[in-house]
Amino acid sequence: MLEKVNYPEDIRKLNLEEKQILAKELREKMIDTVSNTGGHLASNLGVVELTIALHSAFNTPIDKIVWDVGHQTYVHKMLTGRKEKLDTLRQMNGLAGFPKVSESMYDTFNTGHSSTSISIALGMARAQEIKGEKNKMLAVIGDGALTGGMALEALNDVGSSNTDMIVILNDNEMSISKNVGGISLLLSKLRTKGLYTDVNIKGKKTMNKIPIVGNRVVKMVQKAKRGIKQMVIPKMYFEDIGFRYLGPVNGHDLEELESILKIAKAQSGPILIHVLTKKGKGYKPAEDNPDVFHATSKFDKLTGEKIGKSKFDYSKVFGKKLLDLAKTNQNIVAITAAMADGTGLREFANEFPERFFDVGIAEQHAVGLAAGLSRAGMIPVVPMYSSFIQRAFDQLVHDVAILNLPVVICADRSGIVGQDGETHQGLLDMAFTNIIPNFTIMAPKDFKELEAMLEFAIGLKNPVLLRYPRGGEQIEFEQHEEIKQGKCEVLQKGKEVCLIGIGKFVARAYQVAKKLEEKGIEATVINARFLKPLDEFVMLQYMQKAQIVVTLEDGTTKCGIGTEMERVAFENKLNVEVMKLGYSDEFVKQGTCEEIEEKYGLSEEKIVSQILQKKEELKENRRGNGWLKILEKR
Amino acid sequence: MLEKVNYPEDIRKLNLEEKQILAKELREKMIDTVSNTGGHLASNLGVVELTIALHSAFNTPIDKIVWDVGHQTYVHKMLTGRKEKLDTLRQMNGLAGFPKVSESMYDTFNTGHSSTSISIALGMARAQEIKGEKNKMLAVIGDGALTGGMALEALNDVGSSNTDMIVILNDNEMSISKNVGGISLLLSKLRTKGLYTDVNIKGKKTMNKIPIVGNRVVKMVQKAKRGIKQMVIPKMYFEDIGFRYLGPVNGHDLEELESILKIAKAQSGPILIHVLTKKGKGYKPAEDNPDVFHATSKFDKLTGEKIGKSKFDYSKVFGKKLLDLAKTNQNIVAITAAMADGTGLREFANEFPERFFDVGIAEQHAVGLAAGLSRAGMIPVVPMYSSFIQRAFDQLVHDVAILNLPVVICADRSGIVGQDGETHQGLLDMAFTNIIPNFTIMAPKDFKELEAMLEFAIGLKNPVLLRYPRGGEQIEFEQHEEIKQGKCEVLQKGKEVCLIGIGKFVARAYQVAKKLEEKGIEATVINARFLKPLDEFVMLQYMQKAQIVVTLEDGTTKCGIGTEMERVAFENKLNVEVMKLGYSDEFVKQGTCEEIEEKYGLSEEKIVSQILQKKEELKENRRGNGWLKILEKR
Repeated sequence: MLEKVNYPEDIRKLNLEEKQILAKELREKMIDTVSNTGGHLASNLGVVELTIALHSAFNTPIDKIVWDVGHQTYVHKMLTGRKEKLDTLRQMNGLAGFPKVSESMYDTFNTGHSSTSISIALGMARAQEIKGEKNKMLAVIGDGALTGGMALEALNDVGSSNTDMIVILNDNEMSISKNVGGISLLLSKLRTKGLYTDVNIKGKKTMNKIPIVGNRVVKMVQKAKRGIKQMVIPKMYFEDIGFRYLGPVNGHDLEELESILKIAKAQSGPILIHVLTKKGKGYKPAEDNPDVFHATSKFDKLTGEKIGKSKFDYSKVFGKKLLDLAKTNQNIVAITAAMADGTGLREFANEFPERFFDVGIAEQHAVGLAAGLSRAGMIPVVPMYSSFIQRAFDQLVHDVAILNLPVVICADRSGIVGQDGETHQGLLDMAFTNIIPNFTIMAPKDFKELEAMLEFAIGLKNPVLLRYPRGGEQIEFEQHEEIKQGKCEVLQKGKEVCLIGIGKFVARAYQVAKKLEEKGIEATVINARFLKPLDEFVMLQYMQKAQIVVTLEDGTTKCGIGTEMERVAFENKLNVEVMKLGYSDEFVKQGTCEEIEEKYGLSEEKIVSQILQKKEELKENRRGNGWLKILEKR
Repeated sequence: MLEKVNYPEDIRKLNLEEKQILAKELREKMIDTVSNTGGHLASNLGVVELTIALHSAFNTPIDKIVWDVGHQTYVHKMLTGRKEKLDTLRQMNGLAGFPKVSESMYDTFNTGHSSTSISIALGMARAQEIKGEKNKMLAVIGDGALTGGMALEALNDVGSSNTDMIVILNDNEMSISKNVGGISLLLSKLRTKGLYTDVNIKGKKTMNKIPIVGNRVVKMVQKAKRGIKQMVIPKMYFEDIGFRYLGPVNGHDLEELESILKIAKAQSGPILIHVLTKKGKGYKPAEDNPDVFHATSKFDKLTGEKIGKSKFDYSKVFGKKLLDLAKTNQNIVAITAAMADGTGLREFANEFPERFFDVGIAEQHAVGLAAGLSRAGMIPVVPMYSSFIQRAFDQLVHDVAILNLPVVICADRSGIVGQDGETHQGLLDMAFTNIIPNFTIMAPKDFKELEAMLEFAIGLKNPVLLRYPRGGEQIEFEQHEEIKQGKCEVLQKGKEVCLIGIGKFVARAYQVAKKLEEKGIEATVINARFLKPLDEFVMLQYMQKAQIVVTLEDGTTKCGIGTEMERVAFENKLNVEVMKLGYSDEFVKQGTCEEIEEKYGLSEEKIVSQILQKKEELKENRRGNGWLKILEKR
């Protein structure tokens, strides 16, 4: 059946039974492919029928679907002209793992971060309304993403206008980790017939005292609520904030799904359809362990076993060390925004449940909560993926830094993350914390240094950003000087070339120095350790002796270590060249980290050859004529 | 009575009648003071009884109150040892207009931005729980602030634990502008007895088809909801997300208030008390026009008339020009996050209601909505106060810049804002957009240039940050070259000194040049106009001729025009001194703009004298010995 279907119009010609066969084939193809390429599996298996039904019931791409987060769009991609390319998924120049408007007219908007879809779809719907167009605008959002402040703000706004739009609530009972919080509670009322626990016995007395809410109402409530509350509340809630609520509907029953979508299509105003799906549906290992198959590496599709042994990585080192520290320091608490597993906090959560807080997808609140805990004497440690910390920028400034509170923000997945692409690269965290007063910013050169830095960070009396990359260490260094605030570590003393690396790229600097040595060039290698406070004084001593200073950072070169060292060189009138290596001011697309580093001139070989080239240039063309070069370039 | 009351323990000794007198006197004192100093009035008049009741019922400062936003803490300050200092309100070294932990042990946390209090109080409450302490933690939050994503995220999280904490919902039916959105709708159901409009007639049919929600429930709903829905929903909503809900209570009835607070105090777990208050209560002009008396300048307390004529300011110029442009360009839409008046959008809202969107206090959604509108062909213009744009940093990156969408973000109140202090200074906007790929960043030198830049921005095909300060222009310039992407404007050609200003500080540069001229020093004056793209080529020509380059920016010198020009000078090996004037890496406290500029060396006189001093230094001490100076400093 999949052979016959290239575009949504092909689906619309199929009967129910044929669509069911299509669903089965889509699942097989996805399991086949992702077991080879890795990627997001469980969420995609959960939306097979929903995606078929959406493209059947609506006139895509005229009607438009915005997929929240967007990692659940593999089915959508296969049904919109891209099934042949599925095996290039997440590879350089291949299909993206997220919607990309540059890839297909069926991809309405680029997503990647959570909780954006309602805002985006509402914007497009309002544009249509202004232009007098009548197409349908849909947002598909999971129950996990619904806890994000941006989604809640948008829900609130949808209700204020009567704009035509349809929100599909894909309620799969888990985001990346298990959902938490009141909204999850509220939704679960609709799913289960569990008993309603009346916590309001004392409240009744109060209600009687308040003139507006009198006795009559109290009695009606008492009578009505036990029976209907758990069934009606979410419906009432969504209707009271201005939606028409349809559902819940079984998200794996194509007939029911299409029927409810058609009812929604025929109506106007804001509509919310509550769809119940199961993550991993149709593949037993993923149904049993949807967490494990959320984002997976290659696996054996028969057994579900991962291929290649699980490597030790920075997240695990962080989690293990934090657990150790927490055993002797009762004040340490850990906060996650729905990423307990990804950030290595699972064991901590098990061992110290009372000192562990999973706030759901809610980065702003995570940092605000940390500020409150810190103010009351605890030491909050908040690991988040670097690109998601962007969500909490104001909280870092306003709630943490102004009061100079000791909060340890750990930027996991900082720098290039690889195959998830632009939306997930963690290139900005050093730059955006560098502009916030009071922050200390540091990055370790290897696992052992991460452990030392974490211990050090926990003892500091000001806010800290501690960043480390996805994956493992590149070298296990022998040298490990004690960590001191604002002090760098000199790994090797040379002369002509001064290599200054931070974090992951200290190892690269070290390897480059070895290569230069083979060519008879003596290089200094400095592990900067701190971007802020910066060890200007010590680094200056080595820069002064050098002809070329090379800075290496796994982030934007705007406002990072390169910019700082350039400033130091200028302020001190050094007669050196500063090569700022890192990522220039652009968004970096998907690929393996190695491919991306190669492309941006950051592989060992590329760096060596750039340095050699610079040395050649300097021979021919001594200082003082930079101005002429600029004129030549134009 | 106020004479007798210095601290909360004094209030606790008073009887009801005495407290009522106290309330009256507090109002009089506030009206007296604020009519002289300016400040936030309406919100403070609205919480007089609530503040008295809180300090009566709870054992502050052992029990802790976090005030959301915090501009409503004048009463709190008067009742906690600071009534004598009220006339220094918002002045340099005087009482802050917001809570400050450095000012009093009764100020639990520094607030200023909206929607933070629940996160902070929850953090403190959880810290207590871990430590086994039993004090009460309260968050006081307005219904406007409740639409902010951070507050909604926090509400959701409170429900997930059973932590003791009390949220006081101060429902005054307006934030700065009138509230909007579904949450407002939901709350209004509790306030009014208005008829519930059953929009669900068609929905019924659907419900019958869904197996989980059967006929029985439909009937029960039909029967129950008309009568009780508008009374019970908010209560049910808050209870379903895990709170015990008490109220609503008349927020100006001290007896009722104290009674409900005491009930809450005796209970455990998360409690929400719904308090109805009236902004401006007790002062007729403020009751009638709470918007006008939200943040007011000096006024005549008898008539309520503002003293000093309303000056033309950047916000008004912006609003007027946007309105003009929108008359001929149908694609222009405007978005505000509850700041229609403050940002000059009121007339636009009246003239083009279908192209105007007030999303409530919801900056993240405001920018996401803009991204959606832009993607669908509209030209969204989003004026926000600079320091509030920080809330939408991720949306600027993820939803706007990655797709390179033409969205015009206007940073109103950028740079120093003066008396609101650290939380409201707009010092970071240039720096944090400078690190985002695809952004154009510009700032006008006067009103006329703002008009031209706005028109230019609306025609651009990429994201724009257009920033302008609070208040009026400093000089009306004669010269106004056409705006061209990435092009600066040379206002005056000199030699020894090259002054490069951006935005508000172009006028300062111009005036400094005049002063230098009097001393026989010829200065170049450049209006940078664009921080990004930067007109390096043209500026370089003038920098090259100069001995001293002075950059002037109303923002952090980290990652702004100073940093950029230093880079240009270094890359081109210029033999110049670069003086980066602006704000160094610290939080800037309250004061008038003039006082702050004086303090940071940015007044005309201070700049002139710094330049003269630098010239002297250069005479004595020619280049090449920066290194020695660093050694001397240590």
